[in-house]
Amino acid sequence: MTVKKLKIGIIGSGALGLYYGAMLQRSGQDVRFLLRRDLSAIHQNGLQVHSVHGDFHLPQVVGYSTPNEMGPVDLVIIGLKTFANQYLIDLVRPLLGAQTCILTLQNGLGNEELLAGEFGVDRVLGGVAFLCSNRGEPGHVHHLGEGKVRLGEFHGGLSERSRQLETIFNAAGIPCEAVDDLQRARWEKLVWNIPFNGLCALLQQNTTELLSHAESRQLVQEIMQEVIAGANAQPLKEKIDGPAFIERMIYLTDQMNGYQPSMMIDRGEGRPLELNAIYAIPLQRAEAAEINMPKTKMLHTLLDFSEHFQPNTGSLRDLSSLKISACK
Amino acid sequence: MTVKKLKIGIIGSGALGLYYGAMLQRSGQDVRFLLRRDLSAIHQNGLQVHSVHGDFHLPQVVGYSTPNEMGPVDLVIIGLKTFANQYLIDLVRPLLGAQTCILTLQNGLGNEELLAGEFGVDRVLGGVAFLCSNRGEPGHVHHLGEGKVRLGEFHGGLSERSRQLETIFNAAGIPCEAVDDLQRARWEKLVWNIPFNGLCALLQQNTTELLSHAESRQLVQEIMQEVIAGANAQPLKEKIDGPAFIERMIYLTDQMNGYQPSMMIDRGEGRPLELNAIYAIPLQRAEAAEINMPKTKMLHTLLDFSEHFQPNTGSLRDLSSLKISACK
Repeated sequence: MTVKKLKIGIIGSGALGLYYGAMLQRSGQDVRFLLRRDLSAIHQNGLQVHSVHGDFHLPQVVGYSTPNEMGPVDLVIIGLKTFANQYLIDLVRPLLGAQTCILTLQNGLGNEELLAGEFGVDRVLGGVAFLCSNRGEPGHVHHLGEGKVRLGEFHGGLSERSRQLETIFNAAGIPCEAVDDLQRARWEKLVWNIPFNGLCALLQQNTTELLSHAESRQLVQEIMQEVIAGANAQPLKEKIDGPAFIERMIYLTDQMNGYQPSMMIDRGEGRPLELNAIYAIPLQRAEAAEINMPKTKMLHTLLDFSEHFQPNTGSLRDLSSLKISACK
Repeated sequence: MTVKKLKIGIIGSGALGLYYGAMLQRSGQDVRFLLRRDLSAIHQNGLQVHSVHGDFHLPQVVGYSTPNEMGPVDLVIIGLKTFANQYLIDLVRPLLGAQTCILTLQNGLGNEELLAGEFGVDRVLGGVAFLCSNRGEPGHVHHLGEGKVRLGEFHGGLSERSRQLETIFNAAGIPCEAVDDLQRARWEKLVWNIPFNGLCALLQQNTTELLSHAESRQLVQEIMQEVIAGANAQPLKEKIDGPAFIERMIYLTDQMNGYQPSMMIDRGEGRPLELNAIYAIPLQRAEAAEINMPKTKMLHTLLDFSEHFQPNTGSLRDLSSLKISACK
């Protein structure tokens, strides 16, 4: 099978966008990055990928600071954090030609709907990425493990173009599977993300620690059950087999060594959390299908609260701040 | 009504024990304290009470470092934190004469049962204290507000001696009410303690902050509903009127200005939490009555987990500790 060469625009050049973009460029695709933090470093020194599968360097990388400079492409790949979705439409619009398709690899639910509402259902594909990567110094990206993408049409079905993207990704060394039911793939990922992202973020403990404690291990599984009930109330082509799926997720997570989900890192570094895409919208979808997810809702409330308030660290800090204000 | 003079032994001379003991001594009662941290300071300088109702100083305070030195008393008042309950029986035993009664003012459930199991049901009374106090420097205790006690017989009913204790406490300036259903008083206090202690401890935010956010305010009320359902499944003489009681609790808490529940302070200062008395035993009692308390259980799990694991504070600390270990 010949691999089509595409003009690809990357929106949201965080760890995911930089890594997948670099892999695609290395395989011969014509990749352009929308860059902010890394722009000058990449113009000067190119992009350095540190990967568990071997490091490589791209000396020439095309980066822009605005989407208007980039102009139309064949494929837009979106890696933007969903808490920045208010900018998404304006970032994507200048990249669209008559045939451009849009692939969002963002977390959670609601991203395809946002794009389809503005640009039409036919342009939109979505994918779930199982990738562990971090940004390093400007111009550097670290690929720590995994990387698989499952992608499909927003309106469902196994299209020719989703097969083409599967081929392009696999040819670039990114394991990829085109699926006929994107909604199911998204909910399956939520079965993992909803308990682990939130609990690890809230408690600032990694997956291994969370699973080492009998009660929190049980809580993870109870939240997974809620998400599967929410998923199976959606119009999926095939239901998720709850007990078997949970068992597999727990088994796989037990194999990970001290994994820190993205939301745990985001919270630890004081960044916003992707609560809308990973919690609020799934909860709305479940509620619309009359499925109650009380523990998921409680976790969302605790995370949402903790985003709005900086935690105190005990009375010592309170007292010292009182002293400071008394000295003013 | 004449106020009987009793020989009173205080076990657990934290903020609660020191404050109530000092008030009782000032009113003419013969009070002895079991002291650890404050022993030498109190022997040298007496006990200083800093109170919103006026400061006072007790120059002569009888304090012991072991219960054997104290010997039998008429009344044992217990203010020990429940996480130290494994020492309770041995601390109380030397204080018991033939007629000694035991009043536990500890938090949560299970304390009267522990004492009654060892020393007999007839000796045991319990009380719930609504007190805001802190220990200061050794020999100092701070009374920040409230102070009311509701006490009653462990086996129920309004006894002569509970009336006498009511008189003794009121005469000492401690607002006190003898109640005929101690279990109801305990559960009523749990309706407040279970949501506020745990959520404030977990999130390290005070009651005002917790109630200022619509979703967490709602969560507090949902947890209160669970606790009331658990309470009303117990053999209480009179059921708790859920909506009215919740409304009053929320109203009263809205009047408090940035109140920090004891468990929030305990967690902030790295002390153990009273999870058994405030969560585990109430959950067991509710479960035995076939009442499900999913949000209370989830809160207990999160608190219990957070007690077992020190939270990381983001990747910076992790990296610096790595550097340190590399320099060894």
